[in-house]
Amino acid sequence: MSELRKDPVIDRWVIIATERNLKPYDFDAYGEIRKPGPCVFCEGMEMHTPGELFSIREADTLPNRPGWRIRVVPNKFPALRVEEPSNHSIDGVCESLSGLGAHEVIIETPNHYVELAELPVSQIGEVFLAYRERMRDLEKDTRFRYCIIFKNQGALAGASIQHAHSQLIAIPVIPKRVKEELNGADNYFQKTGRCIFCDILQQNIKDNKRVILENDRFLSCIPYAPRFPYEIWVLPKKHTSHFIHNTDNDLISLADILKNLLLSIKKALNDSPFNLIFHVAPFHRPGEKSYTDSFHWHVEILPSLTKVAGFEWGTGFYINPVIPEEAAEILKKNLPITK
Amino acid sequence: MSELRKDPVIDRWVIIATERNLKPYDFDAYGEIRKPGPCVFCEGMEMHTPGELFSIREADTLPNRPGWRIRVVPNKFPALRVEEPSNHSIDGVCESLSGLGAHEVIIETPNHYVELAELPVSQIGEVFLAYRERMRDLEKDTRFRYCIIFKNQGALAGASIQHAHSQLIAIPVIPKRVKEELNGADNYFQKTGRCIFCDILQQNIKDNKRVILENDRFLSCIPYAPRFPYEIWVLPKKHTSHFIHNTDNDLISLADILKNLLLSIKKALNDSPFNLIFHVAPFHRPGEKSYTDSFHWHVEILPSLTKVAGFEWGTGFYINPVIPEEAAEILKKNLPITK
Repeated sequence: MSELRKDPVIDRWVIIATERNLKPYDFDAYGEIRKPGPCVFCEGMEMHTPGELFSIREADTLPNRPGWRIRVVPNKFPALRVEEPSNHSIDGVCESLSGLGAHEVIIETPNHYVELAELPVSQIGEVFLAYRERMRDLEKDTRFRYCIIFKNQGALAGASIQHAHSQLIAIPVIPKRVKEELNGADNYFQKTGRCIFCDILQQNIKDNKRVILENDRFLSCIPYAPRFPYEIWVLPKKHTSHFIHNTDNDLISLADILKNLLLSIKKALNDSPFNLIFHVAPFHRPGEKSYTDSFHWHVEILPSLTKVAGFEWGTGFYINPVIPEEAAEILKKNLPITK
Repeated sequence: MSELRKDPVIDRWVIIATERNLKPYDFDAYGEIRKPGPCVFCEGMEMHTPGELFSIREADTLPNRPGWRIRVVPNKFPALRVEEPSNHSIDGVCESLSGLGAHEVIIETPNHYVELAELPVSQIGEVFLAYRERMRDLEKDTRFRYCIIFKNQGALAGASIQHAHSQLIAIPVIPKRVKEELNGADNYFQKTGRCIFCDILQQNIKDNKRVILENDRFLSCIPYAPRFPYEIWVLPKKHTSHFIHNTDNDLISLADILKNLLLSIKKALNDSPFNLIFHVAPFHRPGEKSYTDSFHWHVEILPSLTKVAGFEWGTGFYINPVIPEEAAEILKKNLPITK
């Protein structure tokens, strides 16, 4: 049972979810691995997870049995639950919602000892295909307004389980951080008639100061004002507001660029933990504002090299000790491919 | 030389400050102390810091010599500099300011081995008096619009130096996070004619579900929607928008309640690292909107018990595994005083 509570001063929701205390934890206090494999995400351990919602598996194999390459299951210790009745309560300055939502885990490989960057491009593409299929399915549930997909790799980046996986959370409200980005992009569109991310792409292609790598469909760069050292944005070259519109070929192209970027991080930043976040438009619901023209989906990669401290919490400013143009150079030099 | 850069999509500034790479670091990769004292913040080492801006010291002792209890000095590895000329540049979607600002360190004790919570109430009061005097002084510099004071204790909370200290940063813009809080409070004031923090105080006093401790002038509680387990807010009972308006007696009363809270965190949360942040109104400048009636200064204490991960970065939502009402009970039980 969880509960969504809204801060009375600013438009910020928190999820109070006590079940999260029960989740397994593979790392010790120093972030070192204390539990070696196999784990419940490994092949042959399918009976220890909730039943699968989606999988990519060999022909003639059965759901929840071995033979899969990618498997999506409900989170066993969810922050939110699909079965929760939808309740809304207000008491003075206190506003709450019941903890309705979907919380799923995308297991990226049956092998305990392989990480996302080490998978073949075709399988990374299948991981993104699983994302897209789950998002398409959840879009049909009209209780949900937003769906986010993210990956935490390494204990310092907030991972509790070592086996390669990502997570999906669908929620009944559009979150604050997403609104800020939607509004920022929409304001720019109203003023100029153009998508701001398309303009960022153009400026990057023109001055080439912060580009790390591009392929036929994607460009990756250090953003102009990164919060964190070696923060990376990956932008589709073609304007698209939502991840669900991607073709299978788009996903392979994304897999190709992300594999190279993650291998560069691994080499240049000494295997740094990181968060990988898919920034997408909300589900489009009838009668609601559409961000089809103004928003442009993209991926953000945030290596966990600095700590967020009092100054950042108090101001929303970030102090970044690495010059963005130099960070781009270093990541470019450490790419595994030759251009 | 540092530079402020603005994210083109959302109203978020970052400080690119390469000198921060040079700062000393007392902790190893696991957050354990690797450099024992004495350090440059200790008594007798005054010649190793920039010259003091303020101190509280024994009569007949000289500035930058032993004999002090509290000492404020410019940060030797600053994120921003007072001498910086004020420059503003725009190139397409890229906007920057020169790194103008003040970055000061408040050394809370001459003794390397004592932490803030262990100082006598009178000396903690003097630390807050130093905050107030420095804020009053910086208010006179009309280039600055905002001044924040914060304390990071422990490596996991972002501290790089063990010796008890806090930091002050004055900047030429009102930061995003501060604007959100000012606007939230101002909207509430426009709607109701009341300060939202005064209403939060009233609701806490009435239902008493999340109050930890109060004294004559302050109330401390777990907020209704805390981002982090055991997050604490300390609110002055009398409506005041800015910390600089506090009397010496107010500061002693604040020292009394904070000492008790920090000792409770130490005991209940196994010496958890934490951030302590002073949320205050901007400097009031002629012709600018005043938040005197709608904003209410307060302190936030954020223990570093959970990691901020992909979900939080992507949505601005937070997942908190501890029920706020239970957190208040636990901190109340671990207070050193009997009531």
